[in-house]
Amino acid sequence: MTQGKKDVEQITGRDIDFAKWYTDVVTKAELIDYSQIKGCVVLRPYAYALWENIQKILDDMFKKTGHENVYMPMFIPESLLQKEKDHVEGFAPEVAWVTLGGSEELTERICVRPTSETLFCDHYKNIIKSWRDLPKKYNQWCSVVRWEKTTRPFLRHREFLWQEGHTIHATVDEAREETHRMLDIYADFCENYLAMPVVKGQKTEKEKFAGAEETYTIECMMHDRKALQSATSHYFGDGFAKAFDIRFTDKDNTLKNPFQTSWGMSTRIIGGIIMTHGDDSGLKLPPKVAPVQVMVIPIAQHKEGVSEAADALLEKLKLSGLRAKTDVSDQSPGWKFAEYEMKGVPLRLEIGPKDIQNNQCIAVRRDTKEKIALSLTDIDKSVKELLDKIQKNMFEEAKANLDNNTFVAYSVEEMRDIIQTKGGFVKAMWCKDLSCELELKEKALVSSRCIPFVQEKLSDCCVCCGKPAKHMVVWAVAY
Amino acid sequence: MTQGKKDVEQITGRDIDFAKWYTDVVTKAELIDYSQIKGCVVLRPYAYALWENIQKILDDMFKKTGHENVYMPMFIPESLLQKEKDHVEGFAPEVAWVTLGGSEELTERICVRPTSETLFCDHYKNIIKSWRDLPKKYNQWCSVVRWEKTTRPFLRHREFLWQEGHTIHATVDEAREETHRMLDIYADFCENYLAMPVVKGQKTEKEKFAGAEETYTIECMMHDRKALQSATSHYFGDGFAKAFDIRFTDKDNTLKNPFQTSWGMSTRIIGGIIMTHGDDSGLKLPPKVAPVQVMVIPIAQHKEGVSEAADALLEKLKLSGLRAKTDVSDQSPGWKFAEYEMKGVPLRLEIGPKDIQNNQCIAVRRDTKEKIALSLTDIDKSVKELLDKIQKNMFEEAKANLDNNTFVAYSVEEMRDIIQTKGGFVKAMWCKDLSCELELKEKALVSSRCIPFVQEKLSDCCVCCGKPAKHMVVWAVAY
Repeated sequence: MTQGKKDVEQITGRDIDFAKWYTDVVTKAELIDYSQIKGCVVLRPYAYALWENIQKILDDMFKKTGHENVYMPMFIPESLLQKEKDHVEGFAPEVAWVTLGGSEELTERICVRPTSETLFCDHYKNIIKSWRDLPKKYNQWCSVVRWEKTTRPFLRHREFLWQEGHTIHATVDEAREETHRMLDIYADFCENYLAMPVVKGQKTEKEKFAGAEETYTIECMMHDRKALQSATSHYFGDGFAKAFDIRFTDKDNTLKNPFQTSWGMSTRIIGGIIMTHGDDSGLKLPPKVAPVQVMVIPIAQHKEGVSEAADALLEKLKLSGLRAKTDVSDQSPGWKFAEYEMKGVPLRLEIGPKDIQNNQCIAVRRDTKEKIALSLTDIDKSVKELLDKIQKNMFEEAKANLDNNTFVAYSVEEMRDIIQTKGGFVKAMWCKDLSCELELKEKALVSSRCIPFVQEKLSDCCVCCGKPAKHMVVWAVAY
Repeated sequence: MTQGKKDVEQITGRDIDFAKWYTDVVTKAELIDYSQIKGCVVLRPYAYALWENIQKILDDMFKKTGHENVYMPMFIPESLLQKEKDHVEGFAPEVAWVTLGGSEELTERICVRPTSETLFCDHYKNIIKSWRDLPKKYNQWCSVVRWEKTTRPFLRHREFLWQEGHTIHATVDEAREETHRMLDIYADFCENYLAMPVVKGQKTEKEKFAGAEETYTIECMMHDRKALQSATSHYFGDGFAKAFDIRFTDKDNTLKNPFQTSWGMSTRIIGGIIMTHGDDSGLKLPPKVAPVQVMVIPIAQHKEGVSEAADALLEKLKLSGLRAKTDVSDQSPGWKFAEYEMKGVPLRLEIGPKDIQNNQCIAVRRDTKEKIALSLTDIDKSVKELLDKIQKNMFEEAKANLDNNTFVAYSVEEMRDIIQTKGGFVKAMWCKDLSCELELKEKALVSSRCIPFVQEKLSDCCVCCGKPAKHMVVWAVAY
């Protein structure tokens, strides 16, 4: 091997130590680098390109539903953060405080936004006077800071990237409709772009967002059967509007408080993609968001005509709108195969002297590792069909994992037993009392993930206390 | 007028009080709202849409020249900021310091990035081992914080959005080439997209970036004849690489320090667009970056067929890829005309019953206010032609302002006189001594804007001390 060549490094087996496997993948696939500050990571080009694809799709969905992007300051004065009581209680313990500007001590300390409800409210108060000014449907792409004690790449950063939508409406109905519309958009995005099936539902009082009246969530099951809260949408009623004194003159000439929502998805979802689809060879990216959808690998590239054929193939794929790349470095084909499997490229096309003779190339699917000879005629069309198949298959595999690992429990013991032996989502009836939720946390180590929109009447009794049940809840161990 | 209707508010005349006119425009055109923290502003949808257009064009230019986007943490530990001596001296006095995380005092205070050289170096040190790892050509879109005493919308924020490119190369030549390539991209972008003519050149030692060996700049002249530094590109040599101990094994198997560059453009450029093109009616946006290129205004919209014709016109424009909108609110046409002139929409199309009869609409140019009847047949083509003309005319007007207000001075008195009576850019010879630069600052109130690439030998003597001159410098009062 030539001096300077790299080895594809080994990673821990996924089913041997899932946590270690995960950390190996995020570093070996060159997604992140650690910075000197715990929980603050570098998103390397490959991770950022993935995030850009996610942004582009979501941003289009937001704009098509009438949302506009804005940018709010990153700093919140302490007095502003404190205006809504529940909100400050939820966030103040984990914010980073700026106390010095240059060499001067600030008269009021300011926090780096953990979320921007208070900033949006402060702005709405300035710009909303009449019913003509409503609704405002805003979104922003930014980073937020939460000074967590335990951190983990993508899943729990002290600083992370996200989008946060903040809307304000004249009526309850309009705000409620918005809350649900955005949850539906997240669910659509997760299932149809990230190949991650979701369970949609409402959070319990205990689990809802600080300051919200209602929080809705999409919950995904990871390969290790734990739950990942993948996006949330909040209905605030007029609580924030009252706390911030936002009022508008309605058509009937009376002053009213408007109604608000907020909703967000973050780079955490990249952790979700990794843990849903990845395997012992590394990352496995859904074609619709993969930074590179097709990797063209020339075989025996020093032989006459090979590089040219590889280039021609690459150009054809690019022209048809595919995100395709080639690697003509002097690493061995074997090294390249392993490298781009590690990076989760959905499809590899191998092209060598024999293939050229036969007017074909060899396609290798990242999801199944199946090898398929494809004619170079209409290669763009057959590649697109294959990518669609891969996308669909990845969803179906994840769906099977969710379906096969969703169980029902009728007692605390049964729930604990399922969680300890199999893991997964456990459906069980609940009386709606916090005490039962806490008891399940303590005894079965689960948290309530959501009250699914699709309810089943498993029994009449709460799984914990046996009193009359109000809802079926999905319980699980969560990230 | 219906209750709740708004008036188009008056703004200060541009030539009466330029500073007041500027502040009026940024608020009345709904570009910004002030937040509770001085120098931290809300970028409202219209300003952010403009920034998104700027981002999209620049980002494409960066990607086409082989750059990849990344995201670095926003926090820099104090010890990391201090690694490069000149750099920390330049930035430490104006950074915001985080000293508390939640309720705990941090063992080392951390600053919110004022710029990210130190973070990129820390990352490069981790990932660069061999010549195979070079070059890295990275860029990031983010916000940075500089705790300025005096602030002004877009021109000087305590927090502002920008892009910062950071590249690292095996050789001096490659790094120098990169520095110039990026300056050329900024110049191309300013002239051909923002219709802002530039003077390209090198900064003096006094004015260069903290830690750079060489800083290059594009300087634009605003309507009030002051200069705006619109983008900069820095060549670092191997100074940062040495300070951060970044080394790579070259092909000859020896350890070497690589060479670096950085370059940036910020939301400050939006201030430049406003001050270059705006007039007494408000903002005037170059068609290529305007969030709305064409505003369709129905006249007598309650009359039969008018809304339908306006909608059909709008659809046709949108289909042909134009950013077009309509306003069907019950505000009067006069109100709408003034409103979208204030917002600087390049072209207005008025369509009423008579126009429909004649298969035409009335186009009104924002730049010249000229009215032109356009046939509805091929309207998309004629609108595109008009927008091109507007773009071109805006550049020419700005170029005339630059050319007509660029003067030559042979003495300090002459320079002071020009600056006091006419303003503008003053070309004058310079001996390269800091003392003369300081004396000109004190006596003529100008700063050196750049040593233009296009040099003229105006005389042999420094404008200040009369000693042998080394360069022709452009001097001006700057924002």
